[in-house]
Amino acid sequence: MKGETTYTIAWDAENNCIIYIDQTLLPGRYEVGRCRTVDELADAIRRLAIRGAPALGIAGAMGVALAAARSGERDPVRFRRDLHRAAEILRSTRPTAVNLGWGIDRVLGAADAAGSVEAAKEAAVREAGAVAEEDEVTCRRIGAFGAELLPERCTVLTHCNAGALACRCWGTALGVVRSAVEAGKDVRVIACETRPLNQGSRLTCWELARDGIDVTLITDSAAAYLMRKGVIDAVIVGADRITRDAVFNKIGTYMHAISARHHGIPFYVAAPVSTFDPARSEADVVVEERDRDELARCGDRVLAPDGAAVLNYAFDATPLDLVDAIVTEVGVLRPPYTESFRLMEGKR
Amino acid sequence: MKGETTYTIAWDAENNCIIYIDQTLLPGRYEVGRCRTVDELADAIRRLAIRGAPALGIAGAMGVALAAARSGERDPVRFRRDLHRAAEILRSTRPTAVNLGWGIDRVLGAADAAGSVEAAKEAAVREAGAVAEEDEVTCRRIGAFGAELLPERCTVLTHCNAGALACRCWGTALGVVRSAVEAGKDVRVIACETRPLNQGSRLTCWELARDGIDVTLITDSAAAYLMRKGVIDAVIVGADRITRDAVFNKIGTYMHAISARHHGIPFYVAAPVSTFDPARSEADVVVEERDRDELARCGDRVLAPDGAAVLNYAFDATPLDLVDAIVTEVGVLRPPYTESFRLMEGKR
Repeated sequence: MKGETTYTIAWDAENNCIIYIDQTLLPGRYEVGRCRTVDELADAIRRLAIRGAPALGIAGAMGVALAAARSGERDPVRFRRDLHRAAEILRSTRPTAVNLGWGIDRVLGAADAAGSVEAAKEAAVREAGAVAEEDEVTCRRIGAFGAELLPERCTVLTHCNAGALACRCWGTALGVVRSAVEAGKDVRVIACETRPLNQGSRLTCWELARDGIDVTLITDSAAAYLMRKGVIDAVIVGADRITRDAVFNKIGTYMHAISARHHGIPFYVAAPVSTFDPARSEADVVVEERDRDELARCGDRVLAPDGAAVLNYAFDATPLDLVDAIVTEVGVLRPPYTESFRLMEGKR
Repeated sequence: MKGETTYTIAWDAENNCIIYIDQTLLPGRYEVGRCRTVDELADAIRRLAIRGAPALGIAGAMGVALAAARSGERDPVRFRRDLHRAAEILRSTRPTAVNLGWGIDRVLGAADAAGSVEAAKEAAVREAGAVAEEDEVTCRRIGAFGAELLPERCTVLTHCNAGALACRCWGTALGVVRSAVEAGKDVRVIACETRPLNQGSRLTCWELARDGIDVTLITDSAAAYLMRKGVIDAVIVGADRITRDAVFNKIGTYMHAISARHHGIPFYVAAPVSTFDPARSEADVVVEERDRDELARCGDRVLAPDGAAVLNYAFDATPLDLVDAIVTEVGVLRPPYTESFRLMEGKR
């Protein structure tokens, strides 16, 4: 169904369902989708119609709320069992972004803490709404803290889409850009296309161009050469999970971090506290491998012969020693991050 | 016209024309094209139906031979003027690969040195044939020298296509792989897809899979992460021009060189002596910028909105201090390359 929505993902209270901007169709088509069941939502997440770590946090939260609100179960034990089942379906959709599980657990916790089934339903929907509203506040705070890191006039390289479309609105990495522009700074963005699914070309270019922010598209592999040419002043990316030793983010992030360090260019990560996973280290995290056709085909066009194998990691890990700052809603964290991680643990 | 040809590009003596494998159609379709005029050849080069530095050298040589062989001019002065005009049309098709001009100049020189128009025609066709035959010998020598650099069992990362399709046959970077496999080594190849035109997916995967060599396709941006995971033993790429301070090659090469150095993995360039341009330095070379649609579209699919600018460099420059060896037909050159460059100058 078509229409317009202010937010990337939102709760439709009138119809007890989730509405979202279908990100698989941009930039060619702007279409608002609707999930009435947990299975529909799981499918929308799997096919990346809803993606981006903070947006996945909201999706996880709203997914549990959806299961609660639409449940016909009156027995509190069976109701909770159903809710936890729905949570596991959602949790299994994507293994790498930690925010998904974080959003799920927040709403599960609120529902579990409530007394009756009706109270649990209300609590679930209320908590999911809070997760969504907090995300906007969080992005604005990340933006404000991050904007201070940028020079008055600068060109920023970003990878994938850590923008309004990855969150409720505003964005994390692109939230920093928006806040800097709002503060009167002259910021231009170099967007890496982000193969194989081109979230950079399709989403970052679309949302920045729509907001009138200067954006130039390049191949992922051109970033280092532009650094060599002195064109890039800073790199800002989002994150899907930050363990105590590494930042997991879209495949290609690590390469940009190495290149930035090689050229003495600051490399920043912008992410909410919900992205932190201080109990885990790089080796504990499952990096999602996606379908060969994401690389081997483009629409009807065959790009690679059947005789070639394909290795398609969706994410990579950047060790924290290549990260010059992590911009969160509670402030800008600086290396060696050990103290920050201890504080983080309390705030989650 | 369809058919089969042993070589990527060849002279058809019977019909006085050039035949070539149309590289824009692979891997979906194998088709042999035919150039009867210099304009047809210039068009085939511009649309990358013929590409790859050594193959461009042969194309330049055969293009001048084509102009000579098909000329109806009997006046030696006007004949030579036409030949030089044809040479300039061909020279202007692509600015970065030095081999193109090298091949053109070899055949021009042979024609200019001959006496009569008929002798010049014969000399041009003969010299173009020699350029092509020498390319095969050169690739075999590069392969033999390079194969010695590889361990008995290894995984090699390559970028773009420096294979049989970039040369008469065998290849430079992939020639090294083929020679190592022929020598009984167990070599697996990781092929970077090479955006935006996917020469890695379309050409490298196709020619290696056809030869039964183990090949795995990845996104360009995944290379550094695979190095981090310890999967890559060496990087081998080709070159479009080697100045006294830098290797010009497909955009992305520089990023792989930085990542290889970061991980302590050897970074090798395989290229014939005709690729060297010791009189020039990085700043003197024009890096070709190609059309926005190479990034903004894929077939009928729109990947980027009109509101986004596109910067599409076809090549980048890797400083020689990131290159661990250059494998040529006269041997393996090692840093700091100064002495080699002096010898090079004499051999060209």
